[in-house]
Amino acid sequence: MGNTKRVMLPVTEVDLTAIKYDPLRIEAPHITGLALKFFVKLVELPLIGSLIIGHLKKQNKMNEMLRDTVIPEPPMFRPEFPPQEPESGVVFLKEDEKSEDRVEIATGCLPQYDPANNLGSDSTTFRYWKIRDYAYSYRSKITTPSMLAEHVICAIEEFSNTKPATPLLISFDAEDVRKQASASTQRFEEGNPLSILDGIFVAIKDDIDCYPHPSNGATTWLHEVRRVKKDAVSVSRLRRCGAILVGKANMHELGMGTTGVNPNYGSARNPHDLKRYTGGSSSGPAAIVASGICSAALGTDGGGSIRIPSSLCGVVGLKTTYGRTDIKGALCDGGTVEIIGPIASNVEDIILIYATIFGSSPADKISLNPSTPCLPDLSSHENSRILGSLRLGKYTEWFNDVFSPDISNNCEDALNMFSETHGSKVVEIVIPELDEMRTAHIVSIGSEAAASLMPDLQDGKGKKLTLDSRINFALFNSFTSSDYVAAQRIRRRIMYYHTELFKNVDVIITPTTGMTAPLIPESALKLGESNMKVTANLMRFIVSANLLGFPAISVPVGYDKQGLPIGLQIIGRPWCEASILRLAAAFEGLRMETKKPASYFDILKLT
Amino acid sequence: MGNTKRVMLPVTEVDLTAIKYDPLRIEAPHITGLALKFFVKLVELPLIGSLIIGHLKKQNKMNEMLRDTVIPEPPMFRPEFPPQEPESGVVFLKEDEKSEDRVEIATGCLPQYDPANNLGSDSTTFRYWKIRDYAYSYRSKITTPSMLAEHVICAIEEFSNTKPATPLLISFDAEDVRKQASASTQRFEEGNPLSILDGIFVAIKDDIDCYPHPSNGATTWLHEVRRVKKDAVSVSRLRRCGAILVGKANMHELGMGTTGVNPNYGSARNPHDLKRYTGGSSSGPAAIVASGICSAALGTDGGGSIRIPSSLCGVVGLKTTYGRTDIKGALCDGGTVEIIGPIASNVEDIILIYATIFGSSPADKISLNPSTPCLPDLSSHENSRILGSLRLGKYTEWFNDVFSPDISNNCEDALNMFSETHGSKVVEIVIPELDEMRTAHIVSIGSEAAASLMPDLQDGKGKKLTLDSRINFALFNSFTSSDYVAAQRIRRRIMYYHTELFKNVDVIITPTTGMTAPLIPESALKLGESNMKVTANLMRFIVSANLLGFPAISVPVGYDKQGLPIGLQIIGRPWCEASILRLAAAFEGLRMETKKPASYFDILKLT
Repeated sequence: MGNTKRVMLPVTEVDLTAIKYDPLRIEAPHITGLALKFFVKLVELPLIGSLIIGHLKKQNKMNEMLRDTVIPEPPMFRPEFPPQEPESGVVFLKEDEKSEDRVEIATGCLPQYDPANNLGSDSTTFRYWKIRDYAYSYRSKITTPSMLAEHVICAIEEFSNTKPATPLLISFDAEDVRKQASASTQRFEEGNPLSILDGIFVAIKDDIDCYPHPSNGATTWLHEVRRVKKDAVSVSRLRRCGAILVGKANMHELGMGTTGVNPNYGSARNPHDLKRYTGGSSSGPAAIVASGICSAALGTDGGGSIRIPSSLCGVVGLKTTYGRTDIKGALCDGGTVEIIGPIASNVEDIILIYATIFGSSPADKISLNPSTPCLPDLSSHENSRILGSLRLGKYTEWFNDVFSPDISNNCEDALNMFSETHGSKVVEIVIPELDEMRTAHIVSIGSEAAASLMPDLQDGKGKKLTLDSRINFALFNSFTSSDYVAAQRIRRRIMYYHTELFKNVDVIITPTTGMTAPLIPESALKLGESNMKVTANLMRFIVSANLLGFPAISVPVGYDKQGLPIGLQIIGRPWCEASILRLAAAFEGLRMETKKPASYFDILKLT
Repeated sequence: MGNTKRVMLPVTEVDLTAIKYDPLRIEAPHITGLALKFFVKLVELPLIGSLIIGHLKKQNKMNEMLRDTVIPEPPMFRPEFPPQEPESGVVFLKEDEKSEDRVEIATGCLPQYDPANNLGSDSTTFRYWKIRDYAYSYRSKITTPSMLAEHVICAIEEFSNTKPATPLLISFDAEDVRKQASASTQRFEEGNPLSILDGIFVAIKDDIDCYPHPSNGATTWLHEVRRVKKDAVSVSRLRRCGAILVGKANMHELGMGTTGVNPNYGSARNPHDLKRYTGGSSSGPAAIVASGICSAALGTDGGGSIRIPSSLCGVVGLKTTYGRTDIKGALCDGGTVEIIGPIASNVEDIILIYATIFGSSPADKISLNPSTPCLPDLSSHENSRILGSLRLGKYTEWFNDVFSPDISNNCEDALNMFSETHGSKVVEIVIPELDEMRTAHIVSIGSEAAASLMPDLQDGKGKKLTLDSRINFALFNSFTSSDYVAAQRIRRRIMYYHTELFKNVDVIITPTTGMTAPLIPESALKLGESNMKVTANLMRFIVSANLLGFPAISVPVGYDKQGLPIGLQIIGRPWCEASILRLAAAFEGLRMETKKPASYFDILKLT
């Protein structure tokens, strides 16, 4: 006798009114320190290892979903989007335009800039400096990039010299920063800045190439087998606009974790509470922006890696549509869920960086048929009317399935305030098969990561990985090729549900994460930790945008009782970055207060 | 220490002038009968089995290519085609046109029909009856579909009642055929035939749904778990044109073999030599056409399954561009290499059936962006000029790597005669990484088959498969998800080489198979056989059209010294079926003789 076969209904026949929300209960141990080391030894043993992994998969019904179930839909190996209605009230951009021209057009889409509103605001309410504040300061000779560079260098070194180290960057060259800053300063002196981004400090996550730095993806060895010969495509777009690239930001090793714990280089700390994680995997990018040292950072997001740390650190993070940015020069080059996107302290800066970096790869232009990129025209008097016309989807049971009610309450309040202010409609929605979606995602991202790393793992580099990566790869290596194909069948189902759903709503609103920044266990610092429950809480609302390629943004909406930031996520239709940027700016505008992070580094005040 | 890592050059840096042809030498035992049974038992043992499979894979360097090699290109999960130049001298068709209208347009593309040329030709030279011969006979009341149906039924039953059985069809209902024939006869009596296909006998491979027959894919059990509720899309297009669907044609179980051996239902025999295989997997479709019982058949081709048996049985087989026909209703629904296409005795009939069945699925229309389908206008005086302008690519060392020089000599002669007659240019080409291509293909097709069947295999149905299928699935189940992704990276490389190559040539010419029809070992009849060397010879030239989705056609060009048919393969640019159909018709026109198959069933002569 075999296993019990389950047959899924064809997706078109599923009765959505009968769907019951099934709270996700991940079954896996929480292990840190020496226990983790011992567990990894077991997991890597030939027979016992596969028994343990098999047990974990069984508890989470993975094989049941992938092997015992007939999934009638054909596989969808990468997001495939039906043609989309154009968005209204937008400014169209050309992909082949120079990035410095695009960022200028983007500047024109922003509300009018008044320096008095910003530089002169009273010091009782905290507010991050925006790119336009820096740009104004440079142009009005209040300061220079070179002057600020010294403070930036000083701050970065300070974080790296703590005991234990809490580095924001893991590859950093003060001289290189000085050189870039001095070139920028000279351009200002000559009255020829390259763009509004000239002299703006930007950090690049360690899995995106930024010459001459190595790209280690936070491993200790990747630079030995993979040479960086030039900037990644998005990084080169920033560089030609005059941005000062400060170095390679800290991250969870290979992007394979959501906390940002880093036993190799030291873990970046949450600027709102140094005892807590930043979230991951883009730990350094979120922390360096939240602490005020850089205006923006580039991250990658294959499973929430931009949105999770943005949410936990109280900043804004944009996951772009799959294929909207050129992934060339990132370690995840070739995956089906991962993209490059910006992190910044506010939506306006996100828009400027997004306008600079987007542009599909030549192959994606053919195979994904991207829609013309555009930006929301926030300066238009139409903006408020358009906001009012947007229908906001909310799956209430899912929305409320969070670790602390502070999160859902805060997000709910923001949503209510928003729809009262703008008169927009909140539409109750249902999304079935969330568990299957999560499984399809882990199989996709895990298999693609394993494929990229396999020659090095075969070459013995596996033992040089951190312990939690080793557990991850033991899991990923247990996936068969038919599991992978089954996961892609699930992808088509979930895409169908969302395509239907997007006929009735323009965006889906969720909390970004199911919990705020978790404490760092002392025992995790040296050897890391494996905590699938924390991962599940952090990733609860994240996966659809990755598996289906939708754009999504996390925007801060408040704080929990411990003063930790809470993020709200807006998931948009494919290629519709403009709508979610418009909404995010509006949510941001309604916000009552921004708390000054504990480790805020007030660069401009120092000058 | 780990394995030795190999790093492939980026595909754009590979020096094609340095490529050396590496004759493919498959290492695997040839096993039949009881030895096969014993071998399967070993292969299915938990530890010993994976050691055996591991050994086979090592001999064929599979893990070396997939796991120890850095492949710098991102994966290409399905064929992705750059935009193509339109073909000249073609008649455009609309996909949403009714199939009966399309087949009428197709008829207009054919050279003028003169019944005297055909029905009245002297009986010393053998020639298959064409669809237009039948159509003429019906319209001029020489015979009726009902009259012919009796002979067809009789012939089909004769093949099934031999000892051992050599069935052409494995699901057959004489009454259903009589009913269809009588309806068609009535339409002719009323002067209202549905199209030129009305009353034409067509067989459907057992892996394509044809209501009310079950679809077993030549297994003994698939009908128990998968109900056929309606015709596959292509079958319904034939039916509405009036074609008489005679039943489900024999095949290699699940399409997973190239000989057509079938221990479940009996193996179809090659009409040119009943001691020999038809080739597979579309054994029944090719044999039923070659023996003159049906004008045409639908087959599927995921690894040569249309072209191989067409070549071995001396008929014409068209593999359409990936996505050109709607795969819905075929067992391979959801694969990345398999398509539905026609087999017929001559190119003209292939054109008529192709015009009837094509039309992409709604999802493929979005994601594959197919070019407008068109047909070659063979009736135009431009035809000869266009033929002369086509550049024919030939990779001579590959072309000559055949089991018997009769094959390359015959194909070479045909090619020379063709280029002399039409003044077209033969361009020497080089295709690197043929071994990698073969590996990427087996991983793709195997994993996709395993994924489709996994719930049933888990449910204990594996033991009901034939022995060679069980060996195949033991191999397929050994592929990891990262192997699958690595195979897709190879797919992108091979696509690049072909895209470059197609800048200089319009088609690639090869022999269809590396050997002519192999003898059936007596010991294989009951339990089947596993003969990877025969498979390799039969599949040598087949794989690129599947892995890359190109259209390809096999057209008979002669016979080897034993009188066995030899096929020539024409591989075209994506979506350019028109060019290969035009060429195939021209090659056919140059042919000296057609031998009457030993088991030819002269249906019209009987009336």
